[in-house]
Amino acid sequence: MIPVFFYFAPVAALLALAFAFYFFRQMMKEDEGSEVMRRIAGHVRKGAMAYLSQQYKVVGIFFLVLAVLLAIMSYGFGIQNPWVPFAFLTAGFFSGLAGFFGMKTATYASARTAQAASRSLNDGLRVAFRSGAVMGLTVVGLALLDISFWFLVLNLFVGGEDPVYRMVIITTTMLTFGLGASLQALFARVGGGIYTKAADVGADLVGKVEAGIPEDDPRNPATIADNVGDNVGDVAGMGADLYESYFGSILATAALGAAAFAATGDAGMQLNAVLAPMLIAGLGILLSILGVFFVKAKAGAGHHQLMGALHRGVNISGALIIVLSFFLLRALGIDNAVGIWGAIVTGLLTGVIIGKSTEYFTSQQYAPTKGISKQAETGPATVVIAGMGVGFMSTAIPVIVVGVGMILAFTFASGGGGMENILYGLYGIGIAAVGMLSTLGLTLATDAYGPIADNAGGNAEMAELGPQVRERTDALDSLGNTTAATGKGFAIGSAALTALALLASYIQAIKMSIDRVVGQTSTFVFPNNVEVTSVASVRELDLLQFMEFFQVHLMNPKVLVGVFIGSMMAFVFCGLTMNAVGRAAGKMVEEVRRQFRENAGIMQGEVEPDYARCVEISTKGAQKEMLLPSLCAVVVPVLVGFLFGVAGVVGLLVGTLSTGFILAIFMANAGGAWDNAKKYIEEGHHGGKGSEAHKATVIGDTIGDPFKDTSGPSLNILIKLMSMVSIVTAGLTVAYTLF
Amino acid sequence: MIPVFFYFAPVAALLALAFAFYFFRQMMKEDEGSEVMRRIAGHVRKGAMAYLSQQYKVVGIFFLVLAVLLAIMSYGFGIQNPWVPFAFLTAGFFSGLAGFFGMKTATYASARTAQAASRSLNDGLRVAFRSGAVMGLTVVGLALLDISFWFLVLNLFVGGEDPVYRMVIITTTMLTFGLGASLQALFARVGGGIYTKAADVGADLVGKVEAGIPEDDPRNPATIADNVGDNVGDVAGMGADLYESYFGSILATAALGAAAFAATGDAGMQLNAVLAPMLIAGLGILLSILGVFFVKAKAGAGHHQLMGALHRGVNISGALIIVLSFFLLRALGIDNAVGIWGAIVTGLLTGVIIGKSTEYFTSQQYAPTKGISKQAETGPATVVIAGMGVGFMSTAIPVIVVGVGMILAFTFASGGGGMENILYGLYGIGIAAVGMLSTLGLTLATDAYGPIADNAGGNAEMAELGPQVRERTDALDSLGNTTAATGKGFAIGSAALTALALLASYIQAIKMSIDRVVGQTSTFVFPNNVEVTSVASVRELDLLQFMEFFQVHLMNPKVLVGVFIGSMMAFVFCGLTMNAVGRAAGKMVEEVRRQFRENAGIMQGEVEPDYARCVEISTKGAQKEMLLPSLCAVVVPVLVGFLFGVAGVVGLLVGTLSTGFILAIFMANAGGAWDNAKKYIEEGHHGGKGSEAHKATVIGDTIGDPFKDTSGPSLNILIKLMSMVSIVTAGLTVAYTLF
Repeated sequence: MIPVFFYFAPVAALLALAFAFYFFRQMMKEDEGSEVMRRIAGHVRKGAMAYLSQQYKVVGIFFLVLAVLLAIMSYGFGIQNPWVPFAFLTAGFFSGLAGFFGMKTATYASARTAQAASRSLNDGLRVAFRSGAVMGLTVVGLALLDISFWFLVLNLFVGGEDPVYRMVIITTTMLTFGLGASLQALFARVGGGIYTKAADVGADLVGKVEAGIPEDDPRNPATIADNVGDNVGDVAGMGADLYESYFGSILATAALGAAAFAATGDAGMQLNAVLAPMLIAGLGILLSILGVFFVKAKAGAGHHQLMGALHRGVNISGALIIVLSFFLLRALGIDNAVGIWGAIVTGLLTGVIIGKSTEYFTSQQYAPTKGISKQAETGPATVVIAGMGVGFMSTAIPVIVVGVGMILAFTFASGGGGMENILYGLYGIGIAAVGMLSTLGLTLATDAYGPIADNAGGNAEMAELGPQVRERTDALDSLGNTTAATGKGFAIGSAALTALALLASYIQAIKMSIDRVVGQTSTFVFPNNVEVTSVASVRELDLLQFMEFFQVHLMNPKVLVGVFIGSMMAFVFCGLTMNAVGRAAGKMVEEVRRQFRENAGIMQGEVEPDYARCVEISTKGAQKEMLLPSLCAVVVPVLVGFLFGVAGVVGLLVGTLSTGFILAIFMANAGGAWDNAKKYIEEGHHGGKGSEAHKATVIGDTIGDPFKDTSGPSLNILIKLMSMVSIVTAGLTVAYTLF
Repeated sequence: MIPVFFYFAPVAALLALAFAFYFFRQMMKEDEGSEVMRRIAGHVRKGAMAYLSQQYKVVGIFFLVLAVLLAIMSYGFGIQNPWVPFAFLTAGFFSGLAGFFGMKTATYASARTAQAASRSLNDGLRVAFRSGAVMGLTVVGLALLDISFWFLVLNLFVGGEDPVYRMVIITTTMLTFGLGASLQALFARVGGGIYTKAADVGADLVGKVEAGIPEDDPRNPATIADNVGDNVGDVAGMGADLYESYFGSILATAALGAAAFAATGDAGMQLNAVLAPMLIAGLGILLSILGVFFVKAKAGAGHHQLMGALHRGVNISGALIIVLSFFLLRALGIDNAVGIWGAIVTGLLTGVIIGKSTEYFTSQQYAPTKGISKQAETGPATVVIAGMGVGFMSTAIPVIVVGVGMILAFTFASGGGGMENILYGLYGIGIAAVGMLSTLGLTLATDAYGPIADNAGGNAEMAELGPQVRERTDALDSLGNTTAATGKGFAIGSAALTALALLASYIQAIKMSIDRVVGQTSTFVFPNNVEVTSVASVRELDLLQFMEFFQVHLMNPKVLVGVFIGSMMAFVFCGLTMNAVGRAAGKMVEEVRRQFRENAGIMQGEVEPDYARCVEISTKGAQKEMLLPSLCAVVVPVLVGFLFGVAGVVGLLVGTLSTGFILAIFMANAGGAWDNAKKYIEEGHHGGKGSEAHKATVIGDTIGDPFKDTSGPSLNILIKLMSMVSIVTAGLTVAYTLF
């Protein structure tokens, strides 16, 4: 029943895991350096693992509660399919596992990177980058394996005489499996974001500003927590974020493909359309592994050469995916293969342009960030105003690019953009997201590389290695800052496209729920009073009829209220996470002050400060503070569905998507620009380090910290998670709506 | 044909103007104080008038160009009705005239208020408040007079055998007349906002921070420009903003009423539904005049008593409008009069709750602002982070309240919320806005009162009046800050409701344009390929069919692109205005520094600084900088209409409305909270004036200045203006769409 070439996907996934393991073993064989270096790395590793185990405990409880609720929905009320509770747990588990491996690798790699950098720049780059690749390949490997597994299981167990509709049921069921990954991602991003910035802001405010000691100084009790934070936020958080996008985009595209190609009545072609996103993902994995081997630098390479080395890998695998996916789609024999291929190319280009735009607005090599540095001459207020201005303006290009990309993908895949082929068009938007994320194994490696290089620098600083080593780790770190900024742009862009695909597939989930209701009670009345009395007549309804029967148009106040609340959610979510960072950082400030006050030996460098206490404070703060925002993200879609029905939910998702997407860009870019405006002054402009202008940009940078590392990235998850929650609770919304 | 009771509206409007004139004369009879006070007031008045005449010159050119374009659309291409160019100019002229009178009154009143305050607190309050009432009554008087005039003219000249459809034509034509008021408002808000903050930030950065002289010190060359700015931004800008809301809400409600009650086929009842918003506005004027006389304070009254005095007037007229509008609607004999009355009450309550919420989040008497002050102990970065957090969180209540208000108004007016009565429901939303704004004459008086009191304080400071006078003007000023904050909340809330009503009536404008096309060419093909070939069949189409034929649903990528671009516009508009303030303030900083450097006598208080030069810089900066954002607001809707048609435009308007509304609340409240967090510390908390904590909050306040006085308020106009531009260019969109 399932063609043999399907197994290409799980095999590629296993291959990714095998290479991840290989790169991990390679890294572990490296020398971890002196005793001091090992000790510092050990502190960071212990802190990171302590955080992760605490995090997973809290998340575990949350998951169990939700699994029970889902089980009640499935087995008690029959408003959700019976597979969901189990698939929910597996997706969450695999996402968590990827985070665990990634963090473990990153924390083992930092001292080894520093040590390798003491030999040569290329050695440092190789160790750091391949350790990043462990994270990248683990994420894509586990995600695609999970998808393949459940696809096989459902194909075994789901019955039905009509093979075409059976595939619609299978893929729509699988769609709901994404919730586990989404929820895990939310906790990782919010918890990690709060952790890292509480530690960072706390360390900076007391260490740098009050005590006047440099960053990463071993006398600062919060310095280990700060280094742990880089791993927690940028490795585990970013990994879980993109795990979710990858997972969600494949599932949504499969569901849209099944629905679109159901119209052809050709079960074989429909199956191929469903498999296409998985196969493209598999292809992307092979090319990502290939790309890893292209990343190498010559001795004495500058910033540009290093950047070129990283780009080479990404460019080669990107170019190859464009060429090979064309042949793949042709081989699958799907109708309009060229158009669908056009959508994939559109997705890839969209990602590239957003990355470039992010670089322009946040790098100190370009006018916007330089302009912020100049404003530092009139103090912190003008720095903040200018940074805000840059952040606001930087939203234009990504929004236009995603907008144009969406239109193009839709037009290509629908063969002209007409509404009669709307499902093909939406499938095109989904597959554009899949295309953008196909080489995630590699792009995530360049992201995860950043914090490893950063930690290597911290390790070298604390272990007082020679200036040449610092110079090299600084070069690697500075590169990491650029890849982190473009990585954030990429994460936002892929989140937007994935959320669009999820939005489109929400109606599929609603359709399936009505199918279930009518199967049980033989009747369902739409809000516009149209009644259906047989499963067959439900199955005949097309997407636009659902939109009409549920009155999902923009003059319906329920839709508008949904949009308003959705937009507001993005703002309130930012407020909750900003305030959380403020509170957690406040506790860290008190603790660091207390240690300095009660133990004078710390500042003399005679006594080692109590690092563990600071790690604990950040961990506890993050765990406590992540609950409320997370709960909001889960509860609001359910509540809106209950109050205002499908119309309200679609409005809600559109509102959160559009505002959240743009707010995320604003926060990430304003934060990145402030960070680099400070670096630009540290390079010697406008008075250089220690000047009044420098102090002004340090304030800007501190404000930017929660912008770019907590609230901004968390919004990516919010827009996807709210769609996922809506999809999973579609049955609830269909069964119970108040107004 | 037109019933006699219609004349109640223009008579009430004339009465408003008469009382405005009476209050103006009363104020002019007051003593303007000492020679120094007169001289200072003269400087401010001269600066304000110089600004206004320069502003009106630039705006005049813009208006003439646009009038020519509109004339070409009307007479050349026949895609707009022939009245538009003239009505466009009158609306702009009247709005400008209201601004002129308001500014003139305010600048004459400041020294008189200071002088009256030297007699007693109540005298000071009376002079300031009644001068504010001049602005309030002029705005409502001119607006309602303009509407009444054109209603009469169109009733004379528009022909047509079917009286019911004739009224639809008249009201939809009048709808397009709002553009003049919208455009004037945009220039007033953006230009005024840039002016006032360039002067304020410039004065503070050099005066307070660098030279260490107090605010309003006569030695500061920018101090007159700063005082002019209060008038330009808070009097003229706020007045034009609410003029537009008032004007637009009445027009939109009339158009929706004509369309909704056309279904009854009863021309008399339809006419009454059209007249209802005008008559309610007329009633509100009478009650506003009455309310003015209730505002008085006893000698030695504290903040609460003064607040009580202001509230008394607003509460009494608000309560009376609730009672009297019920009888008015019953007397008009409109179907479901009780439901429509419910919508009016909903609108009024919405305004009250938003005002209270704004007060909670921005007043130093409550936890949020106190929390920001506390964060000042760890420096400016935590002040900014905390203020952002407060701003983000403060969006929740207004959005929920407007959302619930919208649903309730719709449900009441449609008799249950069903989509079969959608036009009645939308009429309800419109009339909720009219209800909220009905007593604008009075609420605007409490707004305009603020800057007058502020200027009186500045005048007293510069003229070195005794401490008792300063105490009293400070009491009046502090009250003004609270009314300004609640006034801003009110302006935002009314803008949101008005924009909703305009959005709803956009489809009416589209319908009228298709009517015109089919009248000329006998055919029109909708995007879903449905063709209409007779005017009669166009007229039979209902709102929901238009939405369907234009494919305005949320799975249409064109709609989604529209939403994305709309949301983005709000952010980019903020970026443009923030950057504009930054640049204009930079020039001011240079000028003030230059004067201090080149003329040492200034700091010794021996030589009067060159105030006029600073006024000129702010004026020129504002004129230059307001053009680009204004042009964007006008061009983008036209462009989106051309590219993506009606579907794209509706998406655009929804996106701008939801995101712009929320962003405006965020910016206004964050700015207000920073301002008052500073005041809270100045009251002696956390170290008081001059402490490090105080300096931190001064930075927060400076950042908040463009938030709350430039970008935030300008967003109110953006959301209304973009709707207006779309309505006026509906004919263009219908005739020419690319995709």
